[in-house]
Amino acid sequence: MLNPFDDTYFMRKALQEAEIALAKGEVPVGAVIVCNEQIIAKGHNQVETLNDATAHAEMLAFTAATNYLGSKYLKDCTLYVTLEPCQMCAGAAFWAQIGKIVFGAADAQRGFQHWHCQVHPKTEVKGGVLAEESEALLKTFFERMRRN
Amino acid sequence: MLNPFDDTYFMRKALQEAEIALAKGEVPVGAVIVCNEQIIAKGHNQVETLNDATAHAEMLAFTAATNYLGSKYLKDCTLYVTLEPCQMCAGAAFWAQIGKIVFGAADAQRGFQHWHCQVHPKTEVKGGVLAEESEALLKTFFERMRRN
Repeated sequence: MLNPFDDTYFMRKALQEAEIALAKGEVPVGAVIVCNEQIIAKGHNQVETLNDATAHAEMLAFTAATNYLGSKYLKDCTLYVTLEPCQMCAGAAFWAQIGKIVFGAADAQRGFQHWHCQVHPKTEVKGGVLAEESEALLKTFFERMRRN
Repeated sequence: MLNPFDDTYFMRKALQEAEIALAKGEVPVGAVIVCNEQIIAKGHNQVETLNDATAHAEMLAFTAATNYLGSKYLKDCTLYVTLEPCQMCAGAAFWAQIGKIVFGAADAQRGFQHWHCQVHPKTEVKGGVLAEESEALLKTFFERMRRN
């Protein structure tokens, strides 16, 4: 039987978070953290809303997930994020020792892989899940920015 | 006339924050952020207290400083931190475009310079300020850990 809770399913949930960010005028990036096929934390980019350069979707989701679990480690969790994490978020993933990172679109400018940043050696990384949907949201945002 | 508000002065304030962390049983790292010779934010490592792997002294100080200034950028600010920032905190410093980073002890294991991580090209970096005092606090912490 097919498992409905696959990477695409959870990435769609992360894309919903990105849409919330877009509606707020934020760069549309969304994230969810999943443990045992359950979403335990959600986050969307809130850099402008909170006036805080550290308020990336992943950072907010990490803090919410560790709060939910009562543990600073997320070894049995998967982060789904619509855009490749940056150096800061990869660093946070390192400290949280997250089990797996699944991202959507690659980020050739600020992505951790392009910057040769490290995640924890036990962290599995997979990119390109619903990348086109993520890129479409980002394109919508930047086209709006140019018009304003 | 000598300026009493030099790097040593502010690093002592960061060391006081590190001492607060030590008293809480945290790895003793402290930080202050300074703008126009005034401390606008303080932070100490709270990873254990908050059960949050992202709760490094610098991260908490960045969020407090941007909240104080009402700006996501810290271009005219200096971060004083007792230990060389990690990849995550260097990434946060990049996004905040902080003017200057002054750190105490180098961190050969997790320091951003050892990991070849980037800060903003306009960010000035200076290490080694009161490094021995910072190392002494860290040594005290790890000796206590080994005894328990």
